[in-house]
Amino acid sequence: MTTTALDRPKLSHESMMTDTMMRIPDFAIDPLFVARWSPRAFDGSDLTKTELLTLLEAARWAPSAYNAQPWRFIYALRGDESWQALLGALVPFNQSWASSASALVFILSDRHMRNPDGSSKGASHSHSFDAGAAWANLALQATRNGLQTHGMSGFDEASARAAMNIPDDFRVEAAIAIGRIGNADALPEGLRRREHPSDRLSLQHLAFEGRWPD
Amino acid sequence: MTTTALDRPKLSHESMMTDTMMRIPDFAIDPLFVARWSPRAFDGSDLTKTELLTLLEAARWAPSAYNAQPWRFIYALRGDESWQALLGALVPFNQSWASSASALVFILSDRHMRNPDGSSKGASHSHSFDAGAAWANLALQATRNGLQTHGMSGFDEASARAAMNIPDDFRVEAAIAIGRIGNADALPEGLRRREHPSDRLSLQHLAFEGRWPD
Repeated sequence: MTTTALDRPKLSHESMMTDTMMRIPDFAIDPLFVARWSPRAFDGSDLTKTELLTLLEAARWAPSAYNAQPWRFIYALRGDESWQALLGALVPFNQSWASSASALVFILSDRHMRNPDGSSKGASHSHSFDAGAAWANLALQATRNGLQTHGMSGFDEASARAAMNIPDDFRVEAAIAIGRIGNADALPEGLRRREHPSDRLSLQHLAFEGRWPD
Repeated sequence: MTTTALDRPKLSHESMMTDTMMRIPDFAIDPLFVARWSPRAFDGSDLTKTELLTLLEAARWAPSAYNAQPWRFIYALRGDESWQALLGALVPFNQSWASSASALVFILSDRHMRNPDGSSKGASHSHSFDAGAAWANLALQATRNGLQTHGMSGFDEASARAAMNIPDDFRVEAAIAIGRIGNADALPEGLRRREHPSDRLSLQHLAFEGRWPD
């Protein structure tokens, strides 16, 4: 990146990629989907609570089975008292780079479908899947707003539950680092080389007409 | 709806909602997120394979842990030989309205992380969550293209596996009906009353600063 998000706080999503990062979709899709990627170099700048809640707002409009909305979010902005508790629940490798993010969010999901009084009416088939839809909304709104996100499954579940008081009924789905893209040169050598949008399998390996291929 | 998608094939997403359907977000988000909803009245029109693959293209650019891309899609367009097989795997209630959709997609996810040779390197923590992110991308691109989607957990898993030859390693996450909005008057009375975008819990019930509230 030759400019940072700080230089130009309202980057259009296209301009967030340089030529060497270009992803070329096979079909005509909204450029937002390929502009969203998962950097590790964040600039350590502050994010306001409103900027963060705007991302969670997009998340809450995701679809879910029976509109059960199983997603929950525990968040900290850098500088918040709870920042270290959330950061400390990540595995050390992720702590090393996510410490430069502007916000951390843990995404949880309710394993149960609920009666109006909150009691369980049985296991949910789709709580993780639905929470994943909320996560995509969050990530896309972030890209739209000149931010990027990086989802992590690299966290210590027991530490996370203890640090954030997470009830057993809620699955810890992922931790999310959110921020403005920073200088990749600040990353260790090995990570610097990986600091670009990743490619994808082509649809022929993913999408099948009528039935799974024999 | 006073017009159908067929009258105006390139509806902007705002124009897909009437006043009585209006969702008012609490923070300034891309209007696409609230324009996406889950109708049951589809118009039974045809969708081309390219129109469908464009939605799956958006899906494949979703984020996933270690970029494992655990999502898989089995699809049928109405008129395809396999249409009845996919439709027949839904519970009868869903068959009753999804039969007017233009395409059906079953979303699967790989329960395993994989070595380059395809052998398992252990259970995936996030396969359902990641597949949910792909589903949100699919749904948002659909709305962007004047279509809507309706996700269903109401399918018969054994029937789905048998009809589509789905391997045990892959979880059946959801079935998706895709189409252009049709005339709600064609729905049975009870469903007609529910044929509008659903509301959401407010963020104060979903998002917590630093820790789960006691």
